[in-house]
Amino acid sequence: KKTYRIAVIPGDGIGVEVMPEALRALDVVSQRFDIGFDYQHIEWASCDYYMKHRQMMPDDWKEQLKGADAILFGAVGWPATVPDHISLWGSLLKFRREFDQYINLRPARLFEGVPSPLANRKAGDIDFMIVRENTEGEYSSVGGVMYEGTEREVVMQQSIFSRHGTERVLKYAFDLAQRRAAKKITVATKSNGIAISMPWWDARAAEVAAQYPDVAWDKQHIDILCARFVMNPDRFDVVVASNLFGDILSDLGPACTGTIGLAPSGNLNPERKFPSLFEPVHGSAPDIAGKNIANPVAMIWSAAMMVDFLGGNVAGPERDAHDAILAAIEDVLKKGPHTGDLGGKASTTEVGMAISERL
Amino acid sequence: KKTYRIAVIPGDGIGVEVMPEALRALDVVSQRFDIGFDYQHIEWASCDYYMKHRQMMPDDWKEQLKGADAILFGAVGWPATVPDHISLWGSLLKFRREFDQYINLRPARLFEGVPSPLANRKAGDIDFMIVRENTEGEYSSVGGVMYEGTEREVVMQQSIFSRHGTERVLKYAFDLAQRRAAKKITVATKSNGIAISMPWWDARAAEVAAQYPDVAWDKQHIDILCARFVMNPDRFDVVVASNLFGDILSDLGPACTGTIGLAPSGNLNPERKFPSLFEPVHGSAPDIAGKNIANPVAMIWSAAMMVDFLGGNVAGPERDAHDAILAAIEDVLKKGPHTGDLGGKASTTEVGMAISERL
Ligand SMILES: CC(C)[C@H](C(=O)O)[C@@H](O)C(=O)O
Ligand SMILES: CC(C)[C@H](C(=O)O)[C@@H](O)C(=O)O
Repeated sequence: KKTYRIAVIPGDGIGVEVMPEALRALDVVSQRFDIGFDYQHIEWASCDYYMKHRQMMPDDWKEQLKGADAILFGAVGWPATVPDHISLWGSLLKFRREFDQYINLRPARLFEGVPSPLANRKAGDIDFMIVRENTEGEYSSVGGVMYEGTEREVVMQQSIFSRHGTERVLKYAFDLAQRRAAKKITVATKSNGIAISMPWWDARAAEVAAQYPDVAWDKQHIDILCARFVMNPDRFDVVVASNLFGDILSDLGPACTGTIGLAPSGNLNPERKFPSLFEPVHGSAPDIAGKNIANPVAMIWSAAMMVDFLGGNVAGPERDAHDAILAAIEDVLKKGPHTGDLGGKASTTEVGMAISERL
Repeated sequence: KKTYRIAVIPGDGIGVEVMPEALRALDVVSQRFDIGFDYQHIEWASCDYYMKHRQMMPDDWKEQLKGADAILFGAVGWPATVPDHISLWGSLLKFRREFDQYINLRPARLFEGVPSPLANRKAGDIDFMIVRENTEGEYSSVGGVMYEGTEREVVMQQSIFSRHGTERVLKYAFDLAQRRAAKKITVATKSNGIAISMPWWDARAAEVAAQYPDVAWDKQHIDILCARFVMNPDRFDVVVASNLFGDILSDLGPACTGTIGLAPSGNLNPERKFPSLFEPVHGSAPDIAGKNIANPVAMIWSAAMMVDFLGGNVAGPERDAHDAILAAIEDVLKKGPHTGDLGGKASTTEVGMAISERL
């Protein structure tokens, strides 16, 4: 029996509420498919921890995570006490960078039983993958303020893209597209407005595309691309984007499928040199936190993605466990119970228990 | 009788096809409301011009536009022959900057007769204004490539925000919100990820907001904000955003109202020191160009915005002309004819003529 060591980081807000539901589902598949999970429960990487220690994580956080095969992550952020850029750069964004999780993989899929905010879309119409660059680009803390406090005050913010970082995310996305039926990929850009980095990004995309003659590709500016997510979401298969554009598209895509309460994500280090991190796309949602009403599906689905990744994304008990969780999620989405975001009245716990029971 | 000098720049692609329909409408209101328009037809600021002269505009373009009260602009871009960043930075983006058109004002409104891609939304449910910063921020040509052609190649792109530029767009937006019934404003940000410029932007927003105690404001990260445009578009009144975020939101907002073929925009120099520029939000659309099928409404509505602006945005023949054009547009949207983007079969010319006839 294979046993995986999982670092469990609930974080803040609804992260704390949805995490137990993911663990509940993992406990069931652990029994059913004979996979061992050895949990390491972590209370740092939260704003509570920050309030006590004036930092988001202990100095030896890397040391503490040494044995982890993966990180299961809730959500971080509590802007009422800690500014977002401090809490996020001190935790989530640090993991992404220091563990070189350069792929952020985010599916957008419309399920039966989930009312889409889009008219005339039914289950199966929307089913695509967003591949987001996850370690560089627009997310940078390089820059600063000049002439502060004067009328001439100016702030400079660098976006930094490397050939290394750009090529690897493009290749990952083209590889993924090549393995899918439609073999189609859309590259997000904004080379008409952002005059230095984005034409350069386009050139990298063209170079990589040339190595995949069997994959149909096009590039679309982020403004019209967002519009097309709403107007023609059925047209997309794989979408690859920079850090910022991927962030935007991976909230918008799931919104088009009904609720961001469903969307999971994997922050992957494909070489498995460092632990990968799995988390819902939604954040800590302070506005609904503490009420036990958040939708736990995104968290549970993230746990399923994690198990499949741990198994090497190939056939085996891990793949079976993933598929079983997905089937249980699909069934509960179809028949209920539903949380408030889907028009239901069920609590986080009720939906989580329903999924585990169907397992 | 007041006569305005209008520089008419059709540009490329469908810009050339929709422009005559705007002029047709202006001719009618000129008669009906006794307003004079003196047109200066300009063939530069197009990719055709570029192919002949290796630059988008003549050296003395500013000189040539000296007497213009406003610029009516179609669309620029023909990527098959001229890369977008060259054609746009050589024309539209130059106007915005050199004429200090620091406000880009873009309404999003759902009309009767226009099917929204969103479920259960009817005319009146969506009606908000996007105020986009238009001269700085993420649209910058500052930066460059290092270690080119090596594995270490890296590209740096600066975003540059000034206190001057940020405060004035925020103030304009808060002023606008204050004049509207709902008195509500949403500030787009991404201060959790973009660590230098966006927290700074948030601080400017908080400072300006403090001067408008009667305006309710909140700030939302661009990812979740895009999601909410789809999920709850009825919640917005005025949205203010940086150059890039405003660009994204002002394609997405109109997409939620059915088609970006309707959305107009004003690139305003509110002090009227330089001519302001009015253009549809849609681009040159090479994929449908040359077929006389583009929707001319965005262009015609842009012309109406121009007339109102020329009249000082106060009661008078210009305001009446604006209102008459809008009423004609509403009527045609309700009763047809419609172009293909709205499910109809009418040509650009037919829709343009229908609007002018209702005038
Ligand atoms: C063509 C492009 C440079 C432009 C922009 O991004 O500003 C357009 O998308 C717009 O919204 O006016
Ligand atoms: C919380 C924030 C920094 C983060 C991001 O922008 O990457 C989140 O929105 C996400 O998508 O994972």
